[in-house]
Amino acid sequence: MDAYKTLREEAFEANLEIKNQNLAIYTWGNASAFDPGKGVFAIKPSGVSYDKLSPESMVLLDLEGSVVEGKLKPSSDAKTHQVLYRKFTGISGITHTHSPYAVAWAQAKKPVPVFGTTHADHGTEEIPCTEFMSPEAVKNDYELETGDLIVESFRKSKLNPALLPMVLVAGHGPFAWGGSASQSVYHSAVLEEICKMALLTLRLDPMAKPLPEHIIKKHWERKHGPDAYYGQ
Amino acid sequence: MDAYKTLREEAFEANLEIKNQNLAIYTWGNASAFDPGKGVFAIKPSGVSYDKLSPESMVLLDLEGSVVEGKLKPSSDAKTHQVLYRKFTGISGITHTHSPYAVAWAQAKKPVPVFGTTHADHGTEEIPCTEFMSPEAVKNDYELETGDLIVESFRKSKLNPALLPMVLVAGHGPFAWGGSASQSVYHSAVLEEICKMALLTLRLDPMAKPLPEHIIKKHWERKHGPDAYYGQ
Amino acid sequence: MDAYKTLREEAFEANLEIKNQNLAIYTWGNASAFDPGKGVFAIKPSGVSYDKLSPESMVLLDLEGSVVEGKLKPSSDAKTHQVLYRKFTGISGITHTHSPYAVAWAQAKKPVPVFGTTHADHGTEEIPCTEFMSPEAVKNDYELETGDLIVESFRKSKLNPALLPMVLVAGHGPFAWGGSASQSVYHSAVLEEICKMALLTLRLDPMAKPLPEHIIKKHWERKHGPDAYYGQ
Amino acid sequence: MDAYKTLREEAFEANLEIKNQNLAIYTWGNASAFDPGKGVFAIKPSGVSYDKLSPESMVLLDLEGSVVEGKLKPSSDAKTHQVLYRKFTGISGITHTHSPYAVAWAQAKKPVPVFGTTHADHGTEEIPCTEFMSPEAVKNDYELETGDLIVESFRKSKLNPALLPMVLVAGHGPFAWGGSASQSVYHSAVLEEICKMALLTLRLDPMAKPLPEHIIKKHWERKHGPDAYYGQ
Repeated sequence: MDAYKTLREEAFEANLEIKNQNLAIYTWGNASAFDPGKGVFAIKPSGVSYDKLSPESMVLLDLEGSVVEGKLKPSSDAKTHQVLYRKFTGISGITHTHSPYAVAWAQAKKPVPVFGTTHADHGTEEIPCTEFMSPEAVKNDYELETGDLIVESFRKSKLNPALLPMVLVAGHGPFAWGGSASQSVYHSAVLEEICKMALLTLRLDPMAKPLPEHIIKKHWERKHGPDAYYGQ
Repeated sequence: MDAYKTLREEAFEANLEIKNQNLAIYTWGNASAFDPGKGVFAIKPSGVSYDKLSPESMVLLDLEGSVVEGKLKPSSDAKTHQVLYRKFTGISGITHTHSPYAVAWAQAKKPVPVFGTTHADHGTEEIPCTEFMSPEAVKNDYELETGDLIVESFRKSKLNPALLPMVLVAGHGPFAWGGSASQSVYHSAVLEEICKMALLTLRLDPMAKPLPEHIIKKHWERKHGPDAYYGQ
Repeated sequence: MDAYKTLREEAFEANLEIKNQNLAIYTWGNASAFDPGKGVFAIKPSGVSYDKLSPESMVLLDLEGSVVEGKLKPSSDAKTHQVLYRKFTGISGITHTHSPYAVAWAQAKKPVPVFGTTHADHGTEEIPCTEFMSPEAVKNDYELETGDLIVESFRKSKLNPALLPMVLVAGHGPFAWGGSASQSVYHSAVLEEICKMALLTLRLDPMAKPLPEHIIKKHWERKHGPDAYYGQ
Repeated sequence: MDAYKTLREEAFEANLEIKNQNLAIYTWGNASAFDPGKGVFAIKPSGVSYDKLSPESMVLLDLEGSVVEGKLKPSSDAKTHQVLYRKFTGISGITHTHSPYAVAWAQAKKPVPVFGTTHADHGTEEIPCTEFMSPEAVKNDYELETGDLIVESFRKSKLNPALLPMVLVAGHGPFAWGGSASQSVYHSAVLEEICKMALLTLRLDPMAKPLPEHIIKKHWERKHGPDAYYGQ
């Protein structure tokens, strides 16, 4: 009997999907699946290539960071996932990648403006970019502080993580989340595509203006509002 | 007996072709096939991934937007297709995607100049970009008004949709059409390629000039003129 | 007995290679194979997609443009191939594509500087871009005049087509040639890669300088000089 | 009995990996595997395409450049590998490619700044770009002098090749190395990705600043420091 069979499988499938969506080369990405009832998440083991993964190799952690099950070391970013599951109530999946266009925006330390409906379909606000971490925070607990940096960035900008499921960590790269591990990979792919489109838009017009508010609102609401009519 | 078997299959194949030509990730594109005799078109169901589609899952609509056959909800863009089939006489297929270079031009809200023969082979004019929709139009009926916006854009620029089978909707992305669903996907791929080439051209020379008129005309006519000699 | 069996197969394989090297979408490229002894070349039929081609569907033409064998219409660019086989003695294969980076340079109407050894391995000179064709020449015989435009461009710049197997036709795109149809596709791929690298180089430094002459010469000679030592 | 069986296989696999990671078209890359105990390295034969390679076709050379085993001519870059194995103690694999983003930086003759953690995970310093080779050095022994140029570039910048396993040769392209042939291909892929990300970063902000020192140090140490905790 494996109480975490489904969770392991969800995390495993999501990690493979990182590769299938071309969001990472080698081992440069990790996804986790969270069970809020049990307070446990399954995450990719550290430094293992995607073609060597199995549901059994996933590592199970609780929200204090203790290993619940698993022989391998968890992803080095596990504590960032842990913080986000604690602070961003309602999310059940997180993905981190080094996809190149999202990394470019993170390295340029710029938020991504809402230039079009592709963005507005997934969030009505600019995608924020955190500050750099202080030397003290780095010394304390780097990955845990990365989580706090993201949370702080959302607090400062008065953003709701349930409504904008993605962020750029300055000088590092993207994190995305969602209602499931699979959805967090989807949001990672969305973010990469939005970042590519936004960079190309600025190449055509360095003074490009954001989409008018009423169109942003319409696109968000037809997918996510009370009268949403997108999907089945 | 299924009176719409061919139409369903045409729409189904065209939607798969969106994926095969890398014009959309996930469900970010939709194609439809129209039968002018019956006044009915078959379109992708909303939010269903390409690998889950079948001819049977296509939704059949008439030009008033009523469902003729089909259990699933049609693409949220169905009304845009409906308007174009009504106003752009002679077209029998429409494709909408979020391909990144076409989206970049739409987000920069710029028409695409005729920089070369790749463009001239498919149209002698700049590819127009619509205006942003007014708040009133958005409130009224967003997808229907998107169709009207496209039609208005062609009317204002005195463009013939039979001669230029593609458009950019400001802040949103490309729509393309043609004599069949399959041809509309082809024109979507053409548009993405033209948009990529045009952006790269401007990177090499921000003051790049359009192709001389006599070469534009020649390339159009060898493929589409009364004495066309391209193809079999 | 088919006297042109090998020639047909060479042309067929080269056309498939255009697709395999991602140098064209749909039917946007054509390759031919020339037999100097017989004065005949085999070329892709016009507008036929790569997956429908066979050695038998290749069209055989002589250097006056008369069909020697074949039921289909030859590529609309056949006369350009014909002129190059007549004027550029010693070449036995030609490829034309619409690969995007080469097209961008052609649309910007700029020669490609020798920025690095990738270029120098295949030619010691800038890759020239022709002039635009005059209205008179377009009216006369467009594809034949395209060939003449290329020949004229090489004559003016005192370039030897045996030493620089590639050119950009202004506002149109690349042509490449070589000792075989297969080699002409290789040179088309080389040209696309050189054009991509050169564009990216200018993005990093708009004032980028060409490679010093002594390094250009060395790279050319280690592959093509009398004491070449590259390859088996 | 083949004393070099493992070495041949390592070199063979690494050369195939160049292709699988899309780091070279045709034959534009070579990898070698070195056995420090025997003082022998196995390298790709010159000008042979990746799909024609086998472990048996690898060429075995000693550090004076004499052929130990093998019927084919070694890669024309073999002497560069030879110099690096002699001067960069501790490395056991080298890869050279013409991957386009790395080539663009080499052609622009610019070192790649440490813009983010993707870079810092693999080195704490800018990736250096060599000087151009002098006419005298080119005349003397081009490939051997290329090795010396790389070594000199590391000496001048006081860089440790064990800590920064990659370099750009001005006007030419990237070389990368590591503890095995496989790791040197990995570092070639890392370098291409870093070069792409850095170029895109500068497109978003031409004045982009490097990552703060304390974050660079942290990322390096979590993977390579005495208390490294990345991987299993």
